[in-house]
Amino acid sequence: MTFNTALDSIKTYEAGLPIELVVREYGIKENEVVKLASNENPLGASKNAINAIIQAAQNAHLYPDDSMYALKEGLAKHFNIPNNTLIIGAGSDQIIEFCIHAKANHTSKILMAKTTFAMYEIYAKAVGAEIIRTPSHTHNLQEFLECYKIHKPAVIFLCIPNNPLGECLGSKEVFDFLKHIDSNCLVIIDGAYQEYAKAKDSNKALDPKALIDTFSNVIYTGTFSKAYGLGGMRIGYGIANVEIIQALSKLRPPFNITTPSLAAAIAALKDEEHIQKSMQNNLEQMPLFEDFAKQNSFNFTPSYTNFITYYFETPLDSKEISEHLFKKGMIVRNLTSYGLNAIRITIGTPKQNEKFFTLFNTYLKKK
Amino acid sequence: MTFNTALDSIKTYEAGLPIELVVREYGIKENEVVKLASNENPLGASKNAINAIIQAAQNAHLYPDDSMYALKEGLAKHFNIPNNTLIIGAGSDQIIEFCIHAKANHTSKILMAKTTFAMYEIYAKAVGAEIIRTPSHTHNLQEFLECYKIHKPAVIFLCIPNNPLGECLGSKEVFDFLKHIDSNCLVIIDGAYQEYAKAKDSNKALDPKALIDTFSNVIYTGTFSKAYGLGGMRIGYGIANVEIIQALSKLRPPFNITTPSLAAAIAALKDEEHIQKSMQNNLEQMPLFEDFAKQNSFNFTPSYTNFITYYFETPLDSKEISEHLFKKGMIVRNLTSYGLNAIRITIGTPKQNEKFFTLFNTYLKKK
Repeated sequence: MTFNTALDSIKTYEAGLPIELVVREYGIKENEVVKLASNENPLGASKNAINAIIQAAQNAHLYPDDSMYALKEGLAKHFNIPNNTLIIGAGSDQIIEFCIHAKANHTSKILMAKTTFAMYEIYAKAVGAEIIRTPSHTHNLQEFLECYKIHKPAVIFLCIPNNPLGECLGSKEVFDFLKHIDSNCLVIIDGAYQEYAKAKDSNKALDPKALIDTFSNVIYTGTFSKAYGLGGMRIGYGIANVEIIQALSKLRPPFNITTPSLAAAIAALKDEEHIQKSMQNNLEQMPLFEDFAKQNSFNFTPSYTNFITYYFETPLDSKEISEHLFKKGMIVRNLTSYGLNAIRITIGTPKQNEKFFTLFNTYLKKK
Repeated sequence: MTFNTALDSIKTYEAGLPIELVVREYGIKENEVVKLASNENPLGASKNAINAIIQAAQNAHLYPDDSMYALKEGLAKHFNIPNNTLIIGAGSDQIIEFCIHAKANHTSKILMAKTTFAMYEIYAKAVGAEIIRTPSHTHNLQEFLECYKIHKPAVIFLCIPNNPLGECLGSKEVFDFLKHIDSNCLVIIDGAYQEYAKAKDSNKALDPKALIDTFSNVIYTGTFSKAYGLGGMRIGYGIANVEIIQALSKLRPPFNITTPSLAAAIAALKDEEHIQKSMQNNLEQMPLFEDFAKQNSFNFTPSYTNFITYYFETPLDSKEISEHLFKKGMIVRNLTSYGLNAIRITIGTPKQNEKFFTLFNTYLKKK
C-alpha cells in the first residue's frame, strides 16, 4: 500500500524510556527504579489533583465536558485573559499539532532552533513542510531574524526555555524580535517550562496576556505536564487571539482530554503551594548538578528548567553512559538522536539526585 | 491571518451535551440529570478498571509506558493476533485521524455512507479530501461498490454497526465486498459498537484476525468507550497488517494515552463478566424502546448498538423535543446536524429508561 509521501521522512519520536521497561528487562523492582528522563515533577502531582482523579474514576464511563468550561475559567483567571483566547489540548504537543495543520502544508517553511523539541520537526514533516534551522544549537534571535528574512517561514517556533538544552530567552528580547515578524507568520512560543524560568529569573518570565495583546500572530503554549506534576494526564493549553483559537478549534477532536485529566487540571491550578514547593526543590537541587558537572569538567548550559544537559567529550559516550545507568535502574535521557554527545537529566528529589551522583561517580571511576 | 484553505469547509463537531451544562443552565442537581446522549455504558466502568484508575492516580506525574506493552499484550491475546498488528489511540477517533493523514490529501476521495459517524467527514476535510457519500442513509454495499468503481477513493469507511442509525452489515457480505476492492485502497472498518452487534446476532460479528489475514488493506478499529464503559478515558485501537501499523505509528504522538487510561483499559479487558452484564442490560432494555416507538408510530431502524434512533414526522420536531427533554434534565442526541428529524437515545439502565419514557410521554400528551 502507498502512503502520503510526507511519511517517508518521518522518524518516530524517541520517547523517554519508561520504568516498566527496566522492570521487564532487568528485573529491578519498580520502586527501586529512578526515572530522571522525562522532566516529570519529582514531587508528583498536587494532592488535590490526585484526589480529583480518584473522585473522577467513578465517572470514567462519561465523556468529559467538551466545552472544558471550568478549566478555561480557571486558566482565564490565572492568566487574566478572556475564556475565548484559550484552547485545551492533550498536552501542549497537541496544540502545536493543531497549529501546524492549520497553518502549514507541503509548500511551507517552518523555522526553529538547531536543537529544540523534537516534536516540532515530526509535526512539520507530517504535513510535508520544509524545516529551517538556525546555525546555533541554542536560541539566538539575531539568527532567527536573518533566517526569517531569507526564508519567510509560515511558522516560527521559539521554545522558551528550550528543551532539551535549558537556555532561556528574555522577555524583552522576545518582544523586540516579534515586532519584526509579519502578522501572517504564526509564532509559537512554547512555554512548557516557563514556571521554572520565572522562579529563577523574573526577566525571563513571559506574560501570555501581554504577548497576545501586543501581537495578533503569537500563540503561547503551556502545559500541566511539568511544574503541575500531571505528565501522565496529558493536558496543555494554547493562548492566542480569537481568530487563531477559532481556526485551531476546527481541528480539535471532541473529548481530547480525559474526564480525570480535566478534573485534575482544575484542581492543580488552585494549588499554588504545590507549585512553590516544586520550584523550591528545583532551585535547591540544580546547583548540585552544576557542581557535579564542574567537578567532572562536563560542559553544560545554565538551565532555566527542571533538567540539566551534560555535554561529553570522548572517550565519554552518552549512549554508553545512559545504557550503563539504565541497567542500574537509573533512567536519564541520551541525546544522541539530537546529534549530541550529551545526556539530559531531570532534577529529582534530593534522594533521587544523590543516587544519580553515586551511580555516575562509580561509573566515572571505573573509566 | 490566513490559514490552510481546507479549514474553510470544516464545521466543528457537535458533541453530545454534557451533564455540567444542564446543571449550570437549569440548576438541576447533578445526580438528577440523566444523559442518554453519548452512548456511554450506563452500568459505568468495570470495578477493576475504576480501581486501576484510583491506583494510577498516584502516578499522575509520570508519563505512561509509550510502548503500551501490557495493553497490546492484552489485546493481542483477546483477538488472537500478533502485538505488531496493533496501534493504540486516544479513542478509535484518533486511529481514524492517523489513517486519513497517512493515506489521504487534497487530491483524494473518501467514500462513506450518507449518514454515518460525523468525525469521518471532519478528519477528511482537514486534509482537503473530497467526500463521496452513498445515496442511501444506511449502509448498502451494492451502492458502495458502484461509488467505488466510479470514484476510485483512497479510503472507504464502513461503520459496522453504524452510528448514528444503528443498522449493521453482516460479516459474510463484508468479506464478499472487500474482495472487489483494490489492495491500495484503505478500508476502515469502525467496530466501535461491535460488542453489541455480536451479542445480538453472531452473523454480524466481525473477526479482526480473519479480516487482516484475508485483506492487506483493511484496518479494524475498536474502542473502550462503549461496551467497556471507559468513554471518559479515551482509549481505542486499530488492528491491521504490519505495513499499515508502521505507517500510522509515524503519526502517533508520544504518550497519546493517559497513565490512568492505560491502566484502566488493561483492567477492563480482563473483566469479561462486566461486558456480559452490560450486554444483558442492553438486550433486555432495547425492546422497550422498540415498543415505545411502535406505540407512538415513530419510525426506527432495528439497532445492533447501545442506542436507538427515532425518526419523526411534522409537527414533531427533533430539535424541540430534545430541547424540552434537556430542560427536564434528560439529555438525548438531536440529529438535526445530520439532516434528520430524529433523535438518538442511548439505552440506559431500567430506571433511566423509565424516566425517558415518562418525560417523553408527558411531552407527547401535551402536543
